Amino acid sequence: MGKNLTSQTQYFNAGKLILTSKKELADVTIAYETYGVLNERKNNAVLIAHAFTGDAHAAGLRGDSNKPGWWDNMIGPGKAFDTDKYFVICSNVLGGCAGTTGPSSINPETKKPYGLDFPIVTIEDMVLAQKKLIDFLGIKKLLSVAGGSMGGMQVLQWAVSYPEMLESAIPIATSMKHSPQQIAFNEVARQSIMADANWNKGDYYGKEGQPDSGLAVARMIGHITYMSDKSMEEKFSRNKKANDDSSDFAAEFEVEGYLKYRGDSFVRRFDANSYLYITKAMDLFDVSGKNFINETKNKNLKFLVMSFASDWLYPSYQSEDIVKALKLKGLNATYIEIKSTYGHDAFLLEAEDETKLVKYFLSKVSKEISGDK
Amino acid sequence: MGKNLTSQTQYFNAGKLILTSKKELADVTIAYETYGVLNERKNNAVLIAHAFTGDAHAAGLRGDSNKPGWWDNMIGPGKAFDTDKYFVICSNVLGGCAGTTGPSSINPETKKPYGLDFPIVTIEDMVLAQKKLIDFLGIKKLLSVAGGSMGGMQVLQWAVSYPEMLESAIPIATSMKHSPQQIAFNEVARQSIMADANWNKGDYYGKEGQPDSGLAVARMIGHITYMSDKSMEEKFSRNKKANDDSSDFAAEFEVEGYLKYRGDSFVRRFDANSYLYITKAMDLFDVSGKNFINETKNKNLKFLVMSFASDWLYPSYQSEDIVKALKLKGLNATYIEIKSTYGHDAFLLEAEDETKLVKYFLSKVSKEISGDK
Repeated sequence: MGKNLTSQTQYFNAGKLILTSKKELADVTIAYETYGVLNERKNNAVLIAHAFTGDAHAAGLRGDSNKPGWWDNMIGPGKAFDTDKYFVICSNVLGGCAGTTGPSSINPETKKPYGLDFPIVTIEDMVLAQKKLIDFLGIKKLLSVAGGSMGGMQVLQWAVSYPEMLESAIPIATSMKHSPQQIAFNEVARQSIMADANWNKGDYYGKEGQPDSGLAVARMIGHITYMSDKSMEEKFSRNKKANDDSSDFAAEFEVEGYLKYRGDSFVRRFDANSYLYITKAMDLFDVSGKNFINETKNKNLKFLVMSFASDWLYPSYQSEDIVKALKLKGLNATYIEIKSTYGHDAFLLEAEDETKLVKYFLSKVSKEISGDK
Repeated sequence: MGKNLTSQTQYFNAGKLILTSKKELADVTIAYETYGVLNERKNNAVLIAHAFTGDAHAAGLRGDSNKPGWWDNMIGPGKAFDTDKYFVICSNVLGGCAGTTGPSSINPETKKPYGLDFPIVTIEDMVLAQKKLIDFLGIKKLLSVAGGSMGGMQVLQWAVSYPEMLESAIPIATSMKHSPQQIAFNEVARQSIMADANWNKGDYYGKEGQPDSGLAVARMIGHITYMSDKSMEEKFSRNKKANDDSSDFAAEFEVEGYLKYRGDSFVRRFDANSYLYITKAMDLFDVSGKNFINETKNKNLKFLVMSFASDWLYPSYQSEDIVKALKLKGLNATYIEIKSTYGHDAFLLEAEDETKLVKYFLSKVSKEISGDK
């Protein structure tokens, strides 16, 4: 396999899903990509779970564009998730807006977009949809499931829901549950969207006015929490924009222009209702305490837990709580806090450190299952 | 003087102000309150500078309501700012909306509210307005000027603009300049207001639609930054509201209900344009480096600098930078980081610790000037 990984989004019809709320969702489509080759024993598959606004395009240059995947620095030939060795799968989450069924999808009953008729979905539901995909691909047991942020929540949920289907799990920069501060940031983002008159109680598809302003502000809030005080200082300091005009309230400092740009460009690729549903799923997620992994179902399950020193959105103490819970269950867990100034974004940026850790971890897990037979 | 301090807002016409931008602001009114009695030598006056959304009503029960002042736990008989000893003054800032001239005031030229015709004002302009008031009260030298957050910026600005008019200064939980993260939080709040269709480029006074939704979201963002991760955990944890209904996007967790309530009640007392102007003044503030205090104008100026361990909006390193700059100028500075879990709000809540420090500091400064003569 060459160095230029290419990829193509594929679609799988998962049929009807029965959600944790007992509500049913008919005719569910799951968008996914795969990289590398599934071996004959089907024991080299790694599932990658994306973060909040990510999608199935995790790696390579997609056929329809030259846009590299969101974790292209980690997935590919010779990389952390080495596609010369592993079969890597990534799917868009349920409730999303990048190919998988979500609130902007057509409701088969009404033939119109769901809007707020879309049921509340949970991280457990997202993982259920992924499990259907893994079944469809004929994989009985994943070598690993890995992801950062909300991706890490899905990783933990996999270990809770289907521990017997995993050899290992790599939750990164994540938590067993959101703190009130994390809920608060999401809630303010939701309020910003719902305060936009164009949001119209979620019924805006095909209309002239779109809730772009509210969604852009929501995204700007997010971006602040993804960076650290220090990384912002290093990137922007108090530099002013070239076309600075302090006589009005246009962006004057570089950091303002950056946030505005990121907010405005985000609305072109993301659906406001998906923002509501997915943040809600994160806030409702709680695998702490009695909801945690049942270790008797797979005593050999191995974990690599990573956090980042400057991440104040998912602070290291939350990863340490995961490790503590795993150790109390007698499960095998390696924990590393990576030194980084990038804040929460570090899980996407500190590829060099992550690569060393993931490579070693996966090759060890791989060797152990080869020795099994 | 009894224990029940009462107060009454007074108004001073400061006439025309020439702003740092060289623009003129005619017919400026300053709302202020005073507590205690100015002694004959007029050397027992302490100016209190309020934070972002504060007002002149710092202490006591105001005549027209039973609402205690915003720093009533610190100002009064026997308290930190002991009104049996000191004459305490607090005025609403220029650009505000609680009695002092701001964007919601009538423009004498057009006889209509200023809106965005109000000029950009700076912390320096706010302090200029306060200086006019102090002159009017016949006070040549303040025993102290004190305040937290944006109040602390005004304290630093006083020391820069009029060092010869101060015996001492007490900047609390503040900074010589905003970091890009602090600017970013303010910018997102401004964007939220300006994204509200009712904001109408600042021209909403007297109209039916008010930019309440945008302003409420701005305030919600602020509240998250005023608390700490820990104080939110202690206050809310992941508790759900009694009338929890997760089938829509109404407030479900207590923290959501709290923020929504605080946002909604805020819009009844605060003007959206003032939010824009005052946050801008904070972001533009920078007394670091060559803009710092000229120590030759008052070598005896004494500082008490306080910060709070869990304050991540104005982190302790920013107060330490102030102390470092003061020490490099050979000025007398005492610095204390108070242990607190309250985050930035601590400057309003940790009255017990603050009282000990302020009382001792003020009585020492007081004794020294009495010995002068």
